[in-house]
Amino acid sequence: MITGHLGLLVDLYQVSMLYTYWKNNMAQRKAVFNLYFRKAPYSDQYAIACGLGNVIQYIEEQREFWFDSQDLNYLNILTGNDEQKLFSREFLDFLGNMNFECSIDAIPEGTAVFPNEPLLRVSGPLYQCQLLESVLLNKINFSTLIATKAHRIVRAAQGDPVYEFGLRRAQGMGCLEASRATYIGGCAGTSNVLAGKIYNIPVKGTMAHSFVMSFESEQEAMNKWVESMPNNSILLVDTYDTIQGITNAINAGKKMRKENCLAGIRLDSGDLCELSKVARRMLDEAGFTNTKIIASNDLDEIEIMNLRAAGARIDAWGVGTNLITGGDQSSIGGIFKLAAIENEKGEMRDVMKISASDTSKSSLPGIQKVRRFKYLNGISAYDLIYDERDGAMISGNLIPYEDLLVGVYDAGKLVYKEPSLEKIRKVSAKSLSDFDWETTPRYTVMIDEKLLERKGKLLEKH
Amino acid sequence: MITGHLGLLVDLYQVSMLYTYWKNNMAQRKAVFNLYFRKAPYSDQYAIACGLGNVIQYIEEQREFWFDSQDLNYLNILTGNDEQKLFSREFLDFLGNMNFECSIDAIPEGTAVFPNEPLLRVSGPLYQCQLLESVLLNKINFSTLIATKAHRIVRAAQGDPVYEFGLRRAQGMGCLEASRATYIGGCAGTSNVLAGKIYNIPVKGTMAHSFVMSFESEQEAMNKWVESMPNNSILLVDTYDTIQGITNAINAGKKMRKENCLAGIRLDSGDLCELSKVARRMLDEAGFTNTKIIASNDLDEIEIMNLRAAGARIDAWGVGTNLITGGDQSSIGGIFKLAAIENEKGEMRDVMKISASDTSKSSLPGIQKVRRFKYLNGISAYDLIYDERDGAMISGNLIPYEDLLVGVYDAGKLVYKEPSLEKIRKVSAKSLSDFDWETTPRYTVMIDEKLLERKGKLLEKH
Repeated sequence: MITGHLGLLVDLYQVSMLYTYWKNNMAQRKAVFNLYFRKAPYSDQYAIACGLGNVIQYIEEQREFWFDSQDLNYLNILTGNDEQKLFSREFLDFLGNMNFECSIDAIPEGTAVFPNEPLLRVSGPLYQCQLLESVLLNKINFSTLIATKAHRIVRAAQGDPVYEFGLRRAQGMGCLEASRATYIGGCAGTSNVLAGKIYNIPVKGTMAHSFVMSFESEQEAMNKWVESMPNNSILLVDTYDTIQGITNAINAGKKMRKENCLAGIRLDSGDLCELSKVARRMLDEAGFTNTKIIASNDLDEIEIMNLRAAGARIDAWGVGTNLITGGDQSSIGGIFKLAAIENEKGEMRDVMKISASDTSKSSLPGIQKVRRFKYLNGISAYDLIYDERDGAMISGNLIPYEDLLVGVYDAGKLVYKEPSLEKIRKVSAKSLSDFDWETTPRYTVMIDEKLLERKGKLLEKH
Repeated sequence: MITGHLGLLVDLYQVSMLYTYWKNNMAQRKAVFNLYFRKAPYSDQYAIACGLGNVIQYIEEQREFWFDSQDLNYLNILTGNDEQKLFSREFLDFLGNMNFECSIDAIPEGTAVFPNEPLLRVSGPLYQCQLLESVLLNKINFSTLIATKAHRIVRAAQGDPVYEFGLRRAQGMGCLEASRATYIGGCAGTSNVLAGKIYNIPVKGTMAHSFVMSFESEQEAMNKWVESMPNNSILLVDTYDTIQGITNAINAGKKMRKENCLAGIRLDSGDLCELSKVARRMLDEAGFTNTKIIASNDLDEIEIMNLRAAGARIDAWGVGTNLITGGDQSSIGGIFKLAAIENEKGEMRDVMKISASDTSKSSLPGIQKVRRFKYLNGISAYDLIYDERDGAMISGNLIPYEDLLVGVYDAGKLVYKEPSLEKIRKVSAKSLSDFDWETTPRYTVMIDEKLLERKGKLLEKH
């Protein structure tokens, strides 16, 4: 397991804010923050919630000593512009004694979510909520991006298995969280052996061009491979010339004379559509009708859709770069916004960011929940964001519904039983049928009247 | 320090290839691999080499027990399509006894590099070189991408400090390697406290909107901040209304009556150019002529260039999303290609990938080095890729030159003294003057005649 003491995985401004809250006796005030995104990635309408498992792992690893003595010593040497220390020793002692007390409600991983819906809601002492900001965003943003990308690619493959082959193009150690998210999003396996071990994900692989080049001839390389790996023989055929490579693969398979000894061939360059058709014909004519054709080479959901539409005879897809980093969209703009805070009298006060210079950046106040209404056939109808103090005003005649946020931490105590990755994966797969993605122009997310009233009051005030 | 046993940070196909090499008595054959990219990122012509430090850290952490018993037990349970084990116990014992014996030559971090130049050259037993493939690519690809992005953004800022504020949008635990790379690329600091601690990078930060919202009024929030952090007071002014926010910041500064108590204000939304001009005028009129204006909000090199060209009065730039993930290009297509291998007679045989179906994917054979020639004024003139067995045939009248690859590992022994991050950063900064980026249409990378002959012979053979 990859681990380490990560108490300092924060932005400096968080520590500065904590210091100022502490100095002004505000550290313990009760606060409520929401984590949400304003726009779904890939110009799509939804995202697949992901990363909660990583958040839980992080909190459980830190909770005993959130800041250890090394962390505090480092904070103690930081100075400002005038070379004076940024933080007082008393404050660092306060941090050193922190016990995690926050409550966290979250939408379970694998669930399809929409803009402005709180994926996580954190409440508790102001300083502790603020301390979680960057690490929660880091984990939820990234895993949600990658699970969503995987979901889109798997949708495009329409039942064909998609394998994640991205380790070499991943953003450093982000590779592990990414492999986990691709599996949640629907991929059938990963090439990353460590991710396979840590998360119990099926691992898959073929061979590299260097393998073929290590032998005097491609034929020899393929013969040796099939002999050595009779139960895992997927031959890469484009090292020198693809058609000759397919011929050599067939020869290697024939030489073995063992049923199913040639599990597959992999195409990694050239016109994948044309080559797959030729390969299928050649394999079938040679009697290798069960041999699968696997394609790779800078694939993404658009390429896969196009290849399928053009009649490519491809059975499985190996996707690396554009899956493991999100491709041309490499982040989700998830944010963590204060929505309510205790005032001096001990009452909860709604707050919102207004951003007069850019109203798209204003936030929604309140202690929010999300309710999903469903048609009787199980298809999701619409979502409603409401304030739990008001209850949901709208319900309509649609039943059943479910409240999406579930309790994860209650006053610092883990109260959530994490589902297995397999179960999470089924939740994400189910959203393919629970929503009518292909024909609905846009899924509706409503904001409850009473919540809008709360917002209106704050806007009036400013 | 973040660490963990990472022997299994490999693609499954590497282990399958090792198994097949081992079964065919080829594991110990001497091989030479090159790691290079075919195209520089961002439609630019160069990249800033980065990631070698992470590679060295990885190898040093693994070398004692490259695979531990848990790793081997995991490999032992993997099965193929017929539920038979993929690998034999004898092979796993062989892996368990591995001692690292490779030699690695590399272009030092911070150096400007060009397509097709080997950033790393690995030689040694075939199975060990092959084992390094994915982890080297993972580390070098990502750090090189981010150092290059940082270099471009720092170029655009023309001397203004650029701070990396990317933790919340980073690709999970890739955030640490990324912060390191942004500092090498020229950023002046990071908001990520853990990265600051691990790599000794200056840490910087301001405040969040939630801080302002935690108080009954913006004025109160700002007053409290300046009182609490008199030596680190950068006030975020756009929580409600930016102009009012600037006024409130000035009021807070005046109230303190302490010199330089208002180090800066931060603009995070709206028309940054116009707002910065207004802010500068307001600050100057109030006597805060030393107060800096820091801008953030989805910035990248293009935005910064445009804002500067439009006369924005911005003194420092906080860049997050588009820097820490690379923005719309989230990977470099670096590859690791076999270039020479010992044959049965013990002679080194050149090899190359040909890829008849896509010649842009063919590789260059040989035991390569890269020589950089310089004009007498210090400006780099051109690079030459040559085979070290032939020597460099071309030299011209240009002196001096330097061979870019330096010895890092010699037969498994670390022989390289890593420069400090500060020194690496200076190398990357120097490339701003060593190359004539703005007027040269394209820097020339030549391939030596003798090396082209080697390639020609191989092409003829196939």
